[in-house]
Amino acid sequence: MSCRDEDRFARVALTWLAEPGTRTVHQLVAEHGAVATLASLLAGDAPDARLRTAVAARTAGTDPRHAAEVALGRAQRLGVRIAVPADPEWPAQVEDLVRLDGLAAAGRTDRETRPPLCLWVRGAEPLAAALARSVAVVGARAATGYGAHVAAELGHGLATRGWTVLSGGAYGVDAAAHRGALAAGGCTVAVLACGLDRPYPAGHAALFEAVAESGLVVSEWPPGAEPHRHRFLIRNRVIAAATAGTVLVEAAARSGATSTLRRAAALGRAAMVVPGPVTSAMSVGAHEMLRELPGSRLVTGVAHVLEEVGRIGDDLAPLARGPRTVRDTLDPDAARLLEAMPARGAIGPEELATRAGLDLRTALRRLGLLSELDLVARTAAGYTLRRAGRG
Amino acid sequence: MSCRDEDRFARVALTWLAEPGTRTVHQLVAEHGAVATLASLLAGDAPDARLRTAVAARTAGTDPRHAAEVALGRAQRLGVRIAVPADPEWPAQVEDLVRLDGLAAAGRTDRETRPPLCLWVRGAEPLAAALARSVAVVGARAATGYGAHVAAELGHGLATRGWTVLSGGAYGVDAAAHRGALAAGGCTVAVLACGLDRPYPAGHAALFEAVAESGLVVSEWPPGAEPHRHRFLIRNRVIAAATAGTVLVEAAARSGATSTLRRAAALGRAAMVVPGPVTSAMSVGAHEMLRELPGSRLVTGVAHVLEEVGRIGDDLAPLARGPRTVRDTLDPDAARLLEAMPARGAIGPEELATRAGLDLRTALRRLGLLSELDLVARTAAGYTLRRAGRG
Repeated sequence: MSCRDEDRFARVALTWLAEPGTRTVHQLVAEHGAVATLASLLAGDAPDARLRTAVAARTAGTDPRHAAEVALGRAQRLGVRIAVPADPEWPAQVEDLVRLDGLAAAGRTDRETRPPLCLWVRGAEPLAAALARSVAVVGARAATGYGAHVAAELGHGLATRGWTVLSGGAYGVDAAAHRGALAAGGCTVAVLACGLDRPYPAGHAALFEAVAESGLVVSEWPPGAEPHRHRFLIRNRVIAAATAGTVLVEAAARSGATSTLRRAAALGRAAMVVPGPVTSAMSVGAHEMLRELPGSRLVTGVAHVLEEVGRIGDDLAPLARGPRTVRDTLDPDAARLLEAMPARGAIGPEELATRAGLDLRTALRRLGLLSELDLVARTAAGYTLRRAGRG
Repeated sequence: MSCRDEDRFARVALTWLAEPGTRTVHQLVAEHGAVATLASLLAGDAPDARLRTAVAARTAGTDPRHAAEVALGRAQRLGVRIAVPADPEWPAQVEDLVRLDGLAAAGRTDRETRPPLCLWVRGAEPLAAALARSVAVVGARAATGYGAHVAAELGHGLATRGWTVLSGGAYGVDAAAHRGALAAGGCTVAVLACGLDRPYPAGHAALFEAVAESGLVVSEWPPGAEPHRHRFLIRNRVIAAATAGTVLVEAAARSGATSTLRRAAALGRAAMVVPGPVTSAMSVGAHEMLRELPGSRLVTGVAHVLEEVGRIGDDLAPLARGPRTVRDTLDPDAARLLEAMPARGAIGPEELATRAGLDLRTALRRLGLLSELDLVARTAAGYTLRRAGRG
């Protein structure tokens, strides 16, 4: 195995050993790397008793290396790939999750707040490109006709305007948002809280097939993992971190759907709420958020949503924050090249290099990177801008 | 005629001469008194051409003094009294309207922003007492079933908790709020934009009778005045100023009902909005306010409303602002006496004077004032607290 493959393998095994987002594990990986962390945990050297117990329980009957091999094999047969931070398609903005530590310390969220170690992905589009311009639409499973209608309209409107829709896989608002985006022929991403081989709820197997056709189905959990109740909350942080903003459509009082919105706000993403009739129990949580969550913003449709995520992108950019999208991770030369690209049509590398004020050799090297990130495409006529490369 | 009667008479004549709230007229009255202002305007000495033209047009065929006499005579036959700032029942909080000048200068409201010169009142309750704890409920004429339901619930809930409901006299939200308060046996006040002898809309004649039975019907315009379109906007400022807060229930885009809310906010009163379905045209204006009016607050029911008007009463009191309710106009001795009153039952003046740390003579004089303001009542057993006297 190459170093990169070893890192990938270790991350899979670590996710099998401890729930994704576990702070101690993420810290160890950040300091010592995934391979050394796995070795250390398997040697019984977990730095806290809680993790030590969890690892002991998990390894009692099974070898994690074997479990990781089984998961990777199963994934290959399913057409599921594994993405890790070293990959070009890794969505850098999820690394912002390290900022949720403050919330966790204040006891307002769980221990599993850290960035994912790896993501299982099904679908053709590179993950970072799909998420570069994305909005989460979340809400009640038991949505009313009103909530489902509004979620579908949002999904459709966002997709029509070239934005990716992100949601969970539940009945109600999640499904309506995906269906709206699919109806517009857009890109939609379902983030599940279980293995991609066991779609949950089972009734959405066909929906997830359709999502994987034109978008992506994603999970932090390896094939075979079950949708345990606590995993939905862990999953929500990824939805909040991966997108420019989260729209809450309907939520009952003290609903789990509000956790995604809270995390979006904590991460400096747009936290948007669709109001509803005050006579509807399914809007109580939405109105609670509008009254209590600082920075939350009432939106009535896709125009308002785009205003907010636009605002986040433009006005808030100068604030000190981690990388947000794949575009933010570009080096200055690559960024200049991307800006110099024509909105329509192709351009030759020489002309582009001149426009960007770079020598041809640097331009060609950076164009290779931009192609790998799926921000530009190389055609017979020259380079063209891809959807994710648009501002 | 006594000086007080002359002042009253001059105010009536002035209101007939120029629309209520006209800035120049109010400034002259504040400087020179109503009697001298009337004489000066009738002598053709208006300080600006616009007012001079208006006075000339109005006095061409009619003597304003005669018109005032006719209006007062008609009012007497109708059981309508006239209240002026010198009267104990004058709601001092409407004087805050001088603060709207800034808005007028910015071109965001009309010229008629100043406090009323007088108010025509029908109903038994003293005006200041009725308005001491009051909330305005305003909204669309073309309310949906949802809006009418919510307005009625708010009217009922506020009345049940001892708050006076204030609104206009229109179909839709106004009428529903009054009916809700009436159903609870509470006090409700209708502020009209025409003479009290010509209820508008005519279909609400019976409703206004019922309101006058247990509450008040009020207008700035003398009997005989017609409900001209522009008068509704002028009227709205009184609704905003007279109450601790305004709740907007339903409003179409760019609706007139939002003007009351804007003025409430400009005056430092609670500006509250009930959201609705984003699919309803009748909630578009309400959502606009929640998105655009600084300080506006989403409320879903009477508990939220009371939180807001309570907050205005408590937290915002230390801010520099004009007198807000009749309680705020009390001198320190009277305020101490009112605070020393037992919540239930009667108390003798000697004991009360001791509690308040005042000599008996001062206490008795202030108790006379408090009785006149209807904050306390004198009974055989001693003095008792009236509804308006409660904190």
